[in-house]
Amino acid sequence: MPDFGIVIHGGAGAISKYNMTPKLEKAYREGLIESLTSGYKILKDGGGSLEAVQRAVNVMEDIPLFNAGRGAVFTNVGTNEMDAAIMDGATLKAGAVAGVRHIKNPINLARLVMEKSTHVLLSREGAEEFAKIHGVEERPDDYFYTEQRWNQLQTALARENGRDRTELSEGNPDADKKFGTVGAVALDKSGNLAAATSTGGMTNCRYGRIGDSPIIGAGTYANNQTCAVSTTGHGEYFMRAVTAFSVSALMEFRGMGLIQAAETAIFGRLTELGGTGGLIAIDRGGSISLPFNTPGMYRGHFLDGGRPWTAIYKE
Amino acid sequence: MPDFGIVIHGGAGAISKYNMTPKLEKAYREGLIESLTSGYKILKDGGGSLEAVQRAVNVMEDIPLFNAGRGAVFTNVGTNEMDAAIMDGATLKAGAVAGVRHIKNPINLARLVMEKSTHVLLSREGAEEFAKIHGVEERPDDYFYTEQRWNQLQTALARENGRDRTELSEGNPDADKKFGTVGAVALDKSGNLAAATSTGGMTNCRYGRIGDSPIIGAGTYANNQTCAVSTTGHGEYFMRAVTAFSVSALMEFRGMGLIQAAETAIFGRLTELGGTGGLIAIDRGGSISLPFNTPGMYRGHFLDGGRPWTAIYKE
Repeated sequence: MPDFGIVIHGGAGAISKYNMTPKLEKAYREGLIESLTSGYKILKDGGGSLEAVQRAVNVMEDIPLFNAGRGAVFTNVGTNEMDAAIMDGATLKAGAVAGVRHIKNPINLARLVMEKSTHVLLSREGAEEFAKIHGVEERPDDYFYTEQRWNQLQTALARENGRDRTELSEGNPDADKKFGTVGAVALDKSGNLAAATSTGGMTNCRYGRIGDSPIIGAGTYANNQTCAVSTTGHGEYFMRAVTAFSVSALMEFRGMGLIQAAETAIFGRLTELGGTGGLIAIDRGGSISLPFNTPGMYRGHFLDGGRPWTAIYKE
Repeated sequence: MPDFGIVIHGGAGAISKYNMTPKLEKAYREGLIESLTSGYKILKDGGGSLEAVQRAVNVMEDIPLFNAGRGAVFTNVGTNEMDAAIMDGATLKAGAVAGVRHIKNPINLARLVMEKSTHVLLSREGAEEFAKIHGVEERPDDYFYTEQRWNQLQTALARENGRDRTELSEGNPDADKKFGTVGAVALDKSGNLAAATSTGGMTNCRYGRIGDSPIIGAGTYANNQTCAVSTTGHGEYFMRAVTAFSVSALMEFRGMGLIQAAETAIFGRLTELGGTGGLIAIDRGGSISLPFNTPGMYRGHFLDGGRPWTAIYKE
């Protein structure tokens, strides 16, 4: 078994070869490899799993292709509102933010909430005030503008035009067939596990909706006794199924191995509830699992002694 | 075993007879009995567990003694910001709101999120906009003003006066030795379980902090296959321990009975993490459990064939 390693995802959904160009696929794969390599280097040099997942997520937050940080989608009112969470498997400490704007790397703010606050989850303007006090790197609105995301919002707005306001989709993840979220889980040489998740939410989202990414137990969970998990998909189902913690609970309480626990959480419990998406997981022994029930999930891993591996579609 | 029943809490913490007057204790007990009776009547008449927990919580939200609805504590900037969540054990559907102002009964808004939205958790101004669209009952600021809560904020502000801003307590639950939250769990005659939790948060709270109450799996959880749970206490620990879902997972995955699972969640897992508080739980067979590791928890139950029972301190 590997002594250390990192696993990442860049979102799951109806990703098909039909909609993909070779150029775009190459860009996604290069982004995944850059993320994996940055995290792996930290682990190889003896760094902690928290640093590794944070750095790997930072890379994807900075690439406009992924729905997190710079590439965040637009809400119904044309803003970019981001969520992120990080958890330390050694201490069960966690930090998260919901609905923050102008933050270059929301996962760094989540880490600061974990380290510098007595709280776990801060939201919106309050979280941004906390960011200012701690000097977190900010960016103006236009940093987060990408033509593709803006067009996605216009398409969504056009689709619902004329419908009764109380019947609006409130951001239908099935509409653009893509759940954008990025995440990383890692095991370091000291045996510590960590998980991190960062997202730009749903296109055309309303009402200050908070999804599963910043919810400890739903979208993000890490515990040295069991595993580290980050999820991606239709967040509401992951919240109702408490998916990330379920993987850990199936291991701790039922005695399942990581792979059986992760597959039970996705192909059993989430799928039975009607949810779509996937997760990445790593355990204290370095076993990994990357189950998803959608046509595709941007994903990869880089384990001690191996090479960076990436994939997009079902095998 | 009872055919149906309801269990409620009105907050846990360092509640001592030393600080309590006979008059105040009587008022708390009367409030608990009114809440229990209103929920019990619905269940006895064949109503659903969702209606019963919602109604029982409404009663406590309307009584200024409890930190929820009318009696919500003040944040650092003198606002009353409330969180609530409700979950249906039959469908695993859930609705929740975080940081809402001016809503008379936040649990009713959470129910509407569950019924009328595709989302699980809405926050702050967005959730208030959703409330307006659906005609949820609102109240002006002065409805939520209570002298006791205002004085608690002034005391907290005076205590931190002169300290460095980055070192502020951000709302220290140990400062006023009381975690205010209300909650209810119920089993109806059809065998359906439901859970509801509503809170006014922490006195002197900052940065848009969201606690465990509106987090499915942390403060609120219901599943007809196992149990319904509502928690109260220092929320950050319940979030990190994923306490409400843990009770369910210990039953489903390890085969524990309700009482052992609930006591393991509080006296084992939460206490080992350093957390303080308690929970109420009921299972599909009508077994109940009300464990807490604080000196007191306002609590009560009213089960089929029994009488309303209330308690405040440890037995």
